Amino acid sequence: MKDIVGSPGTWGGLALRVSQIVCAAGSLVVMSSAYGFSNYSAFCYLILQMLLQLMWSFMLACIDIHSLRTNWDLHRIGNVYKYVIGDWIMAMGSLAAASSSVAVAIFLTTDVEFCRVYPYLSCSRYTVSVILASMTWSFTAASAGSTFWLLVSLCDSDWDI
Amino acid sequence: MKDIVGSPGTWGGLALRVSQIVCAAGSLVVMSSAYGFSNYSAFCYLILQMLLQLMWSFMLACIDIHSLRTNWDLHRIGNVYKYVIGDWIMAMGSLAAASSSVAVAIFLTTDVEFCRVYPYLSCSRYTVSVILASMTWSFTAASAGSTFWLLVSLCDSDWDI
Repeated sequence: MKDIVGSPGTWGGLALRVSQIVCAAGSLVVMSSAYGFSNYSAFCYLILQMLLQLMWSFMLACIDIHSLRTNWDLHRIGNVYKYVIGDWIMAMGSLAAASSSVAVAIFLTTDVEFCRVYPYLSCSRYTVSVILASMTWSFTAASAGSTFWLLVSLCDSDWDI
Repeated sequence: MKDIVGSPGTWGGLALRVSQIVCAAGSLVVMSSAYGFSNYSAFCYLILQMLLQLMWSFMLACIDIHSLRTNWDLHRIGNVYKYVIGDWIMAMGSLAAASSSVAVAIFLTTDVEFCRVYPYLSCSRYTVSVILASMTWSFTAASAGSTFWLLVSLCDSDWDI
């Protein structure tokens, strides 16, 4: 297998998947426990997207563990295409969820200062959840980037021959 | 040159760039003329991103026109890498801007109904600008997708040899 940090079937790849699972689960739990989140569409979408991200990352983490235990080579162009497409779709969804939630959190805390006016809103939890969602996105983008890099290098190595 | 719809140096690619320019300029003009947009951070970011998108798409449209007039072959792996990276960065920026603005527009119109309570807010303009920004993102994503496809097919054709 090619030694690309963070690509599927490597310890780095597994670490990225575990980080995605931890951050997505954290974001989901913190947002679900925040008072009044269901009044804001962006926060509901964040919960849906973090749930999808959790399932995708968990599935790929299981594949990574299986690959590491059995030395199953995941670095074939047919497999890598699927990871690239899935990771990019998840990365776009997480980016949309994170940026829309960041926008609403900034709106509540700075633009209209609802957090100051209505102290019963769980603004600190919204902020923590949004930060965790942004971290989920950055880990997913790292996975997507390294899988893309792997795809290009697989093409390149065929090209060099 | 390879005949991939929407790739650089083709009529389809030029049409996509022109669509990006028209939608980004439309979104920029409509948002700038909307009353009170500067109170909302997401709308300010939208204006900045649409300005960047406008410059990037205009530059690539000029390169496309030059390529079509002089039959300059843009489909070389060294060129295509740059377009893929630039287009993906722009697509991510536009997605973040569009989704954060959509979130704030939905917040204003549906979640807290500010548009009904404060009729002097230019909510219809916010909506039009956000729709145009989403269209800009979709055209940029189409460009990014076709350039990525071109990159993979350039790798593949080398691979077949």
